[in-house]
Amino acid sequence: MATANSSAIDGSETMHAHIVHAHPEPASYNGALTRTACDALSDQGASVSVSDLYEAGFDPVERGMHYDDRLDPDTFAPLAEQRHASRGGTLAPEIRREIAALERVDLLILQFPLWWHGPPAILKGWMDRVFVNGGLYTSRMRYDRGYFRGRRAIVSMTTGAPREAFGPGGRGGDIGTMLWPIHYSLHYLGFAVLPPFLSHGIQGHGYRYAEDDALQAMLANNLRSWRARLQELDADAPLAFPGWDDWGALGEAIR
Amino acid sequence: MATANSSAIDGSETMHAHIVHAHPEPASYNGALTRTACDALSDQGASVSVSDLYEAGFDPVERGMHYDDRLDPDTFAPLAEQRHASRGGTLAPEIRREIAALERVDLLILQFPLWWHGPPAILKGWMDRVFVNGGLYTSRMRYDRGYFRGRRAIVSMTTGAPREAFGPGGRGGDIGTMLWPIHYSLHYLGFAVLPPFLSHGIQGHGYRYAEDDALQAMLANNLRSWRARLQELDADAPLAFPGWDDWGALGEAIR
Repeated sequence: MATANSSAIDGSETMHAHIVHAHPEPASYNGALTRTACDALSDQGASVSVSDLYEAGFDPVERGMHYDDRLDPDTFAPLAEQRHASRGGTLAPEIRREIAALERVDLLILQFPLWWHGPPAILKGWMDRVFVNGGLYTSRMRYDRGYFRGRRAIVSMTTGAPREAFGPGGRGGDIGTMLWPIHYSLHYLGFAVLPPFLSHGIQGHGYRYAEDDALQAMLANNLRSWRARLQELDADAPLAFPGWDDWGALGEAIR
Repeated sequence: MATANSSAIDGSETMHAHIVHAHPEPASYNGALTRTACDALSDQGASVSVSDLYEAGFDPVERGMHYDDRLDPDTFAPLAEQRHASRGGTLAPEIRREIAALERVDLLILQFPLWWHGPPAILKGWMDRVFVNGGLYTSRMRYDRGYFRGRRAIVSMTTGAPREAFGPGGRGGDIGTMLWPIHYSLHYLGFAVLPPFLSHGIQGHGYRYAEDDALQAMLANNLRSWRARLQELDADAPLAFPGWDDWGALGEAIR
C-alpha cells in the first residue's frame, strides 16, 4: 500500500512541521499564533514550513479550468479529473507544491479563525483541491489505512466569542461538532489528529486593543500556552475515530 | 428591531424561493436537483430565482480587496469592514445582489454536493462574504431574534457514499453533525431550518451511468421525491435550536 515517504517518524532525522495558515491579515492574532509555532518548533530543532494561503493567492474553487489535460473535456467530474491528473502528473503547480509540502510532514498544523462555524473558504477549498482522489486517497487507502498514517495533525483555531459560549448548550455551539468535519477529513487521509488548540475571545484580531492591558496579558499568556503545548505534543493522545474493522461492505457499522 | 422586508409570509402574495446552487458542472445531478426545484416551485405558483455561484464566478475569499472604502486601510479586520461597508452602502456589487436576493425569500434552498464533510468552498465563502456583520446580523439581532426570522431554509445535499454509510457509527459519519455548521449559521440569521433533503450514492454525478437502468431509475425516483418534498414543506417542523432564553450574558447555557 502506498504511503507518503516518512522522514522522521522514528526520530532519527529532523522533525518537519508544516503550517497551513488561513487568515487575510498578517497582523492578526492568527498571524501571531503561526509565528509562535514557527519559533517554538524551530527551538525544538524541527524544520518548519508555512503555506500562507492568502499570501499565495490560493484559489479555493475546485473547477475544470484547473485541469489542463482533461479526461472528459465536456463534463467536469471532480474526482475523476483529480484521479486522472494525479496519476498523469498534470495536477496544477500550486497543488503539486501543497502535496509536496504535506509529504514531508511529521506534524501538520492548520491555523485559522472560526468563520460561520467552520474554516474560512480558502482553507475549505485547500482541502477540496489538495486532498486529491487517486493521489492522497483511494477507496481502499483511507481512514486507518490512509496515505499519511503515522503522521500527526493539529488544528489551532481562534474564536471571537468567549470560552463560556462554547460549553454544553452554549450560544456558540459545540467545538467538537464544529471541528468534526476537518478532524474526520484528516483522519480520512490517515493522520493521527491531536486535540485542537483553541484561542477564545479573539475579537478584532488582538491588535486593536493595544491599550487594554488585561486583554494584552491574556493574549500573550495564550501564546505562551501554545508554545508550551507544542513542546509537549508527545503527551497528547490522538482523538479516537472508527476504522475499517468497525464497518461492513457498505460502510455500515458492524460493531 | 430590523428585519428583512417580508413579502409573502402571510400567503397574501406570491411565495418567493431562492436557490443558491454550488456545483461546477451544469450536467451534474446537483444541476438536475436545482432544475427540479425550479419546476416544482413554479408549478406551485411561487416565483423562483437562482444564484449559480460557479456560473457567476463568485469569489468566496473574504479579503481586503473587496472593500473600496476601508475603515482601516492598513489592517484588515473582516467584521469591522463588513459593518462599515454595510452601513455605508459600499459593499461589493455581487454581495449587494446576493443580499437583495435573500431579502426577497420566503424559502431559501442551498443545493450542493458533500465535499470533505462540508459544502464546497464556493458556498462556504458565500456565507463568509454575504452574511455581513452590521447588515444581516448584530450582537443582538441573531438566532431567534435574527434578521430573517419567519423565513424558511432547507439544505439539499448529495453524497457519493450510499445511505448505509451515514448511519450511526458508519464510515461516512453523521449527517446531522456534518450539516450542523450550515444549519446553525442559518439559525444564527433567524431562518427556520427545515430537515435536509439528502440524495445518497450520487457518484460520477449521474450522467456517467446512462446505461445503468437501475441507477437511472433510482436517480429519477429521487428527483420525484424532491419534487414531492417541496410540495409538502408546510408539513415539516423546523429543526430545534436553542435561543436567547436559554443563555446567560456570556452565552453560557442557563437551563
